[in-house]
Amino acid sequence: MRNIRLTLAYDGTNYVGWQIQPNGPSIQAAVKSAIEKLTGETANVLAAGRTDSGVHALGQVANFCTESFIPCEKIRTGLQRFLPEDIIIREASEVDESFHATYSAKQKRYRYVILNSRMVLPFLRNYVYHHHRELDAAVMQQAADRLIGTHDFRSFESQFPNKACSVRTVMEVTVGRCSIWPVWSEPIQQRQETELTNCRGDYIRFDIVADGFLYNMVRAIVGTLLKVGEGKWTPDDVRRIIDQQDRSQAGETVPPGGLYLVHVDY
Amino acid sequence: MRNIRLTLAYDGTNYVGWQIQPNGPSIQAAVKSAIEKLTGETANVLAAGRTDSGVHALGQVANFCTESFIPCEKIRTGLQRFLPEDIIIREASEVDESFHATYSAKQKRYRYVILNSRMVLPFLRNYVYHHHRELDAAVMQQAADRLIGTHDFRSFESQFPNKACSVRTVMEVTVGRCSIWPVWSEPIQQRQETELTNCRGDYIRFDIVADGFLYNMVRAIVGTLLKVGEGKWTPDDVRRIIDQQDRSQAGETVPPGGLYLVHVDY
Repeated sequence: MRNIRLTLAYDGTNYVGWQIQPNGPSIQAAVKSAIEKLTGETANVLAAGRTDSGVHALGQVANFCTESFIPCEKIRTGLQRFLPEDIIIREASEVDESFHATYSAKQKRYRYVILNSRMVLPFLRNYVYHHHRELDAAVMQQAADRLIGTHDFRSFESQFPNKACSVRTVMEVTVGRCSIWPVWSEPIQQRQETELTNCRGDYIRFDIVADGFLYNMVRAIVGTLLKVGEGKWTPDDVRRIIDQQDRSQAGETVPPGGLYLVHVDY
Repeated sequence: MRNIRLTLAYDGTNYVGWQIQPNGPSIQAAVKSAIEKLTGETANVLAAGRTDSGVHALGQVANFCTESFIPCEKIRTGLQRFLPEDIIIREASEVDESFHATYSAKQKRYRYVILNSRMVLPFLRNYVYHHHRELDAAVMQQAADRLIGTHDFRSFESQFPNKACSVRTVMEVTVGRCSIWPVWSEPIQQRQETELTNCRGDYIRFDIVADGFLYNMVRAIVGTLLKVGEGKWTPDDVRRIIDQQDRSQAGETVPPGGLYLVHVDY
């Protein structure tokens, strides 16, 4: 039995999310169906992060087992033939049988993109969150620094209790302005440092890296940082909100279209 | 009777085009319906360019007549309330009764955007044309220069004869690489010179200004310039194609998603 690892990018706009659900098309169902058409076997495909409806991926990771002998590059192109154009298989590789896309993940990077301009254009409406009021990215970064470390993040979890334990470790939260829509056709990390740092521009990019995320955690964190960026709350309020362990104290859950699962580390 | 001029941006992905048609939703029908809801009158709204299905606009211009006394800024916000989020009213102003969006237009600027990279990401699939083979933008510019002037452009017209006369005057064709998706949240022309000129990058932008365009003319011109960019044809072939006055000699009509009506001059 071979264990195949896939790296996927997808546009989540027209899906109910990664996970198969009765109420609409899911990424998981589309990928499962493509694998079954390619291999002729019943497939079980699991992913690193169960992205919600409308949430996108640049580097989602999934895996499935197969008896087939199809070479990996042919798996990639073969699956692509059975997939709609809003789901892209970036890579397929054979991995050790112990690899599990969900449980082997060490940390994940999510990105949230805000278009902070007076004027709206219709093209990015599903790919950024348009926020027309002025935001102070520097003070949002100060607030973001308060999130680093191991904390009980239940103040940022929708529908608590969703998971047995709401303690997570956040390794990085960076907030920066950029003049270009920070979703490229090239691998992200190569370009990140040079093009984004301290740049002026209409986009604000939030990058959050943690060992795991609670339900809607990134979107509640961004909603909270927005309050700070608007001057309604201070960076120290973020510490208070963590300590209060009460979802109603944090900011709103921002819409899904600005959110991207960027990368998973194993 | 007041004559109201509108400037619109729209995402043409989900429409059959500007013009009302029996086979699906049109931009014109959406705008007409919004005007009728706002004013209570039957409206007739006409535009500078009848964009096709899947073609976008940054600066389409339309006009309609009304007996209503609603101030222009309230017309803008009022219409927006009755429009879906993929159609944006950028401006509403009162103009002389002689103004006609279609017939008063002196020249129009269209832009075509190509993503020239090996890798595809799913997000821009309706907003750029992905062309993975390498393209030489400099030689495409040389070919583009052959289009300048007053010519019979029937070699670039789909379903000839569509219009009584296929002679048009092309004032500008510029081809340039850029590292950012050249569709901004801010007015285009301010940023164009500084950010686009001679820049390296994955995007190729074609800007074409003419006193009028034949059916599918921009997309046939871009398809022709692509052949030159790939090294299959030379810049001089473009002159030959114009002279032959035969659509079958020119390149293919490229897909609609990369095309934007940028600006109309009156």
